[in-house]
Amino acid sequence: MSTSEWSKSEKEIARHAFNMAYIRECKSIEEELRKRVTDLHDPQGLWSINTYLTEKRRETDRKYDYRYSVLPFVFARLLYEGWITIENLKGLSEDKIEAIKRISTLSAEE
Amino acid sequence: MSTSEWSKSEKEIARHAFNMAYIRECKSIEEELRKRVTDLHDPQGLWSINTYLTEKRRETDRKYDYRYSVLPFVFARLLYEGWITIENLKGLSEDKIEAIKRISTLSAEE
Repeated sequence: MSTSEWSKSEKEIARHAFNMAYIRECKSIEEELRKRVTDLHDPQGLWSINTYLTEKRRETDRKYDYRYSVLPFVFARLLYEGWITIENLKGLSEDKIEAIKRISTLSAEE
Repeated sequence: MSTSEWSKSEKEIARHAFNMAYIRECKSIEEELRKRVTDLHDPQGLWSINTYLTEKRRETDRKYDYRYSVLPFVFARLLYEGWITIENLKGLSEDKIEAIKRISTLSAEE
């Protein structure tokens, strides 16, 4: 897959899908945070929330890497994890879509 | 102030005051966390909660140092910050109480 051939419209689609996935995933972390805060009853619980958020921050910082050279892999993972659907990538070239699906499927088989 | 002369009953009083202060302070952090979670509306807010908790965890880890050699300083700070009152230390020797009050007052003057 060519990493340099992203048309202007493809870049817009990619950015939109990327941002949407990030917001969705953060929303899910937020929901888990609210649940943990509701169940909170001791100092240990407070620090385990801190550990949870630190891990999620590290994970999302690594995962959401918006470089065109790695974007197909990022989208494959987001697809695999359910943060985007293939519909959200509609408008990307056929070869990109196929590659993203293939990588995503390989991840699922691992 | 002698750091080695803590009687059994003084140790019990100290441990109780120390634990109580820790629980009070953690409760206050918990309240602030609940407030911040209520006001949460974007990913940036999520990570700023994480930063807040990380700072508080580091601060409390350093502050709550239960070694008899530093305990008068720890209690002076807890007194100064309002996590304990002088009443909570009742039963410690007169010289310890006086030293704790003096350090606490010096902190206030700084």
